[in-house]
Amino acid sequence: MAVTIGIDVGGTKIAGGVVDQAGTIIASTRIPTDSADPGGIVTGIVKVGRELLAAAPAASAVGVGAAGLIDASRGVVLSAPNLAWRNVALGSMLEDRLGLPVAVDNDANVAALAEALYGAGRDAGDQVTVTLGTGVGGGIIIDGRIYRGARGVGAEIGHMVIAGPSGPPCGCGNRGCLEALASGTAMGRMARERAGEPAARAVLEAANGSPDAITGEIVGAVALSGDPFACEVLAEAGRWLGLGLGSLVNLLDPAVIIVGGGAAAPGELILGPARAAMTSTIIGVEAREPPPVVPAALGADAGVVGAAVLALARR
Amino acid sequence: MAVTIGIDVGGTKIAGGVVDQAGTIIASTRIPTDSADPGGIVTGIVKVGRELLAAAPAASAVGVGAAGLIDASRGVVLSAPNLAWRNVALGSMLEDRLGLPVAVDNDANVAALAEALYGAGRDAGDQVTVTLGTGVGGGIIIDGRIYRGARGVGAEIGHMVIAGPSGPPCGCGNRGCLEALASGTAMGRMARERAGEPAARAVLEAANGSPDAITGEIVGAVALSGDPFACEVLAEAGRWLGLGLGSLVNLLDPAVIIVGGGAAAPGELILGPARAAMTSTIIGVEAREPPPVVPAALGADAGVVGAAVLALARR
Repeated sequence: MAVTIGIDVGGTKIAGGVVDQAGTIIASTRIPTDSADPGGIVTGIVKVGRELLAAAPAASAVGVGAAGLIDASRGVVLSAPNLAWRNVALGSMLEDRLGLPVAVDNDANVAALAEALYGAGRDAGDQVTVTLGTGVGGGIIIDGRIYRGARGVGAEIGHMVIAGPSGPPCGCGNRGCLEALASGTAMGRMARERAGEPAARAVLEAANGSPDAITGEIVGAVALSGDPFACEVLAEAGRWLGLGLGSLVNLLDPAVIIVGGGAAAPGELILGPARAAMTSTIIGVEAREPPPVVPAALGADAGVVGAAVLALARR
Repeated sequence: MAVTIGIDVGGTKIAGGVVDQAGTIIASTRIPTDSADPGGIVTGIVKVGRELLAAAPAASAVGVGAAGLIDASRGVVLSAPNLAWRNVALGSMLEDRLGLPVAVDNDANVAALAEALYGAGRDAGDQVTVTLGTGVGGGIIIDGRIYRGARGVGAEIGHMVIAGPSGPPCGCGNRGCLEALASGTAMGRMARERAGEPAARAVLEAANGSPDAITGEIVGAVALSGDPFACEVLAEAGRWLGLGLGSLVNLLDPAVIIVGGGAAAPGELILGPARAAMTSTIIGVEAREPPPVVPAALGADAGVVGAAVLALARR
């Protein structure tokens, strides 16, 4: 059975797997990354690739998903803030060192591809996956393939401006981006801004009493224990997410919207408010059903599986 | 040579034409509409269609573009506020009365198709057309075809929320939609809100001294004479348009963006500020060229030509 190798390059780790045509990971490995050392990351990807190739010598191609703005047609990382890369021809560098065809794409794009083929979007038709993490990423699947636009760098759903110039600043330099309002980072900020309120006590305690130490992860964990303040922070992020999803539906009308990423772990505490806000944002909603908004099914494996599928398509 | 009939149904008129395969209108007609009489509009479309069929008996199909939320796969107008229609099976009604296959789609979608084939987007690849009028419409062209999404009603670019819940109210019931900030209606509103300022004198005079009579059309005409106040109103709408286009580029990365519609008549007075705002909204703009933002080339004919092309595709 034909297998390919998928490698998921994150800010803190490189995860890789040998994936079969059913989307199953049949071997895997991971190593930590030092994001301050861009050259070391390439070495790390090669190391992971060689280890998996040793386990599966028949592998026909390698796919890599990485956070950043990537021109997938050329395998070039245009910019990757977390990895300190700029115009890095990652695809050809890796092909030289691994001796196999290498496809490179944005991590959210490959996660969307994996969800479409093997996950929550299986058989659903055109769809969008949104990943909530430190930032907000996204992938658009049209006709079963990743839609990248003319320059290969579309689907940056996190940088749809939804709250205008009076919205909170985003890491990209704009204000009011979806990422600035619905990412894990935004959840942490929203909680920190209200850390002085009596209601914030449980969240503050979970951060060892230090307001600056409150993160989206802490808010999510405290919310899952039922704390009303933490739940309200997630609901606020969820309402902003829903506003963005509503805009997205008005624009693209996908059959299904899949929400994944670490910051989406509290599930319905975010997705419930998001659905309600989305529905009130969709125009003509009285004449049609809003698309389902469902949690991602593949979890942390989506990056590896999607990268391996990408390799298969490019083989 | 094969010809088809295209019919453009607006709030004030029904325009129709016989169109050849080069996109040339070889015969045309138009009648006024009474938008308060939904049944009368169907009669009017049939009248226009029969007149054109008499002129071109060899016509093989009819295409209709109408403002509203339309399920093009079934030819059903889900809602059309300007025409007081709701769930009208316009396609099959017209097929019965005209005896030819009839395709129905949103007016901005067919305009986008016409621009892609014969206008400003010819040979450009995937593209977006935005129409500025009473509202803001849009059409997305992917792989040379209208992209409609899962339920056939996508590309409602005017209802991307860009200024959040604190933005001005939109006719759709939301706040902060692109339509509420960059349509001809929005230009009129912005000027009316500032009608008491001394700088607004020329615009106010053009409205016969009545602030309530200021429209986007008046602002556009006065701006073209060089009036700084009117130019600033158009620039403000242009900046909002650019913010929306920047979001659209982050999401879809089109090869070109075409701006048409009556309210876009002042051209660069709107498009200049729009380009600047778009460029500052696009992420990673240092690593790629922003797409060109160009005026539509087909003007008022885009609706008729696009509808005729739609008929050809469905024939």
